[in-house]
Amino acid sequence: MDASLTEIAGGVTAPEGFAAAAVHAGIKAGNVDRADVALIHSPSPAVAAATFTTNKVKAAPVRVSAAHLRAADIRAIIANSGNANACTGCTGIDHAKRMARAVARVLKIKERQVLVCSTGRIGVEMPIEKIETAIATFSPPLEKDGSLAAARAIMTSDTVPKETAVEVALASGTVRIGGIAKGAGMIDPNMATMLCFLTTDAALDKKQAQRALSEAVEQSFNRITIDGDMSTNDTAILLANGLSGGGPGTMSGGDLEIFQEGLNAVTRRLAEMIVLDGEGVTKFVEVQVLGAATHQDARKAAEAIANSTLVKCAWFGGDPNWGRIIDAVGYSGARMREEMTDIFYDGLIAVKNGMASATPFAKLRETVAQDRFTVTVDLHVGSAGYTVFTTDLSTRYVELNMGE
Amino acid sequence: MDASLTEIAGGVTAPEGFAAAAVHAGIKAGNVDRADVALIHSPSPAVAAATFTTNKVKAAPVRVSAAHLRAADIRAIIANSGNANACTGCTGIDHAKRMARAVARVLKIKERQVLVCSTGRIGVEMPIEKIETAIATFSPPLEKDGSLAAARAIMTSDTVPKETAVEVALASGTVRIGGIAKGAGMIDPNMATMLCFLTTDAALDKKQAQRALSEAVEQSFNRITIDGDMSTNDTAILLANGLSGGGPGTMSGGDLEIFQEGLNAVTRRLAEMIVLDGEGVTKFVEVQVLGAATHQDARKAAEAIANSTLVKCAWFGGDPNWGRIIDAVGYSGARMREEMTDIFYDGLIAVKNGMASATPFAKLRETVAQDRFTVTVDLHVGSAGYTVFTTDLSTRYVELNMGE
Repeated sequence: MDASLTEIAGGVTAPEGFAAAAVHAGIKAGNVDRADVALIHSPSPAVAAATFTTNKVKAAPVRVSAAHLRAADIRAIIANSGNANACTGCTGIDHAKRMARAVARVLKIKERQVLVCSTGRIGVEMPIEKIETAIATFSPPLEKDGSLAAARAIMTSDTVPKETAVEVALASGTVRIGGIAKGAGMIDPNMATMLCFLTTDAALDKKQAQRALSEAVEQSFNRITIDGDMSTNDTAILLANGLSGGGPGTMSGGDLEIFQEGLNAVTRRLAEMIVLDGEGVTKFVEVQVLGAATHQDARKAAEAIANSTLVKCAWFGGDPNWGRIIDAVGYSGARMREEMTDIFYDGLIAVKNGMASATPFAKLRETVAQDRFTVTVDLHVGSAGYTVFTTDLSTRYVELNMGE
Repeated sequence: MDASLTEIAGGVTAPEGFAAAAVHAGIKAGNVDRADVALIHSPSPAVAAATFTTNKVKAAPVRVSAAHLRAADIRAIIANSGNANACTGCTGIDHAKRMARAVARVLKIKERQVLVCSTGRIGVEMPIEKIETAIATFSPPLEKDGSLAAARAIMTSDTVPKETAVEVALASGTVRIGGIAKGAGMIDPNMATMLCFLTTDAALDKKQAQRALSEAVEQSFNRITIDGDMSTNDTAILLANGLSGGGPGTMSGGDLEIFQEGLNAVTRRLAEMIVLDGEGVTKFVEVQVLGAATHQDARKAAEAIANSTLVKCAWFGGDPNWGRIIDAVGYSGARMREEMTDIFYDGLIAVKNGMASATPFAKLRETVAQDRFTVTVDLHVGSAGYTVFTTDLSTRYVELNMGE
């Protein structure tokens, strides 16, 4: 981490003025005690930014939140696990709105000041009365140390809650950025959903918040892939209440840059936690493509490698199978010439000019035997690069995803 | 099969004038007796057509065969298993040419009248002397019933040899079409390679042969997907010697259409055999997309479903998880509206207008419990359709692909 960043405790409630809590609604059959509804609250005015799934199939809460996002002052995020409220038609939209309305009642704010998120099973109607009843039990002020409870309540097949926070020293003073996330778990719900809620007491205006969030998401959640599938519910939200001082949009250009670094650090850390907690994951792999003709080409090549079933099975088995890697690059659509392509495992050259290098196979095997390693592909046709973070594909992954 | 088609025995040697044989070269370490070099021979002049992998990384034999294909009269196909001769640089090109030259010597034809194919491990130099020595032991005339031996010699992780043949009644007389293939097996070699060799005694000119082969491949091998990876060595070749009578290009338009049906039947049968013999496959699934805005859209949607790790894991577990299917359609890039999308399992409606249908879940589960079923997605936005054939993704698949 950068010198101007300090990791701090408190997750999404670390920034000034944010509180959170979680309650049990019993959304999923058989869930008799685990909290499954989380609420994050900013009693002070806050601007909100968000990025949503680009899937054409969008869950009802995604549609409702995208509409509410237009409000200048957003005060709360309500989120549930156990049901995705996706493929639920007009009823689903009504249910997402009812969740926002229930929060508005208990927090004494407007319905459109509430963003709504859901994660869990697709195509099942929400038990909306249960959820409304649960929401009514929140009693403000929420807890100043409620981040971890909220992080736990949005878990589905995640095995650990995910939260982090940093303090960032700007020229104009110190600000805090916190976040919680849930990851790509697909056992019980029918779909991997990535949810990430970020808060900050920095003084951003709505435009600055959106720009900062979009860049942070691009550098983090858009770079991770476990199985290449994209959910109907993926959402990242940033709330900024400006309580650290100064009014909205008062940050200087230099401070904005430092803030961006802080936000990037938070989202990258959460993205890494998501990958490490991916279903059946035994290895964390950084795939770097260098020397591509264009940024798009570098991205295509990196994503083809990171999403190749064959490449991922080989990693699971500790096999430094570069044939499958160069093959994936070959069909990725990226401009490449076989005879100019070099491939490295943790800096050890495996392929030189499209052919096996002199590196002993046993050496390469040692690298792939590790829990974490980097694969670098240098295409030597240009100067563009791209990096993605991915995992192996294990028998356990299949077992976790084969049933309901 | 159509009334004008009759399935016959003999595979690639069923058509008049073709013979085949296989010998043992011991290309793969530990292979002490299995034949691993196959030769198909037409003593009479024949025109050749071929389709090759579109992967930018192309094995040496693919490059050499693409060059030789320009010859007007091709007499032989030589193919080996155990080594792909891919990512082997200039040495690889030299080795592929030496294979063609060795065949030319033994059959007393020209080097460029020989097409060369290899399948097996990538990035390892060919034991070319062993192969040359083995080729020298072929003694023409080859065997009139040598098809099965040839089909066996090109197997890698295939568990059964794949051959088929049909007799087709044209207005101008009866012709035969035969084929052998090897499939998507990836245990010991580093890569799935599809090889298919087709022969016919119909009287086609080179242009007709290429047009017929391209269409047949488009209807068969281009419609199957096991893991979405595309090999460096994929090749389909058609040899037509015209021995059934008539000169090259003498077929009428009507006869050409009937011939095409016959060729399509042969390639579809071989494609189905490849899918059924895919690694760790427990289910054969036909994915149909209907009502798409364009052919390209239908294809995108069908392939997104067929290549989704999550969808395939669900099928393996017998879970009729339509949430994962509509999700895959949503991110496929095909134009679609969630609320207009219907999904069927073997004709049973699972999703109506983007929401769960009234069909009992147990009914859907019965369908997916079968070894073979069809998934139909009707997008209701146009009239284009596309069908692909795919499989589930099993724990056994991962086991088979995790090591060398």
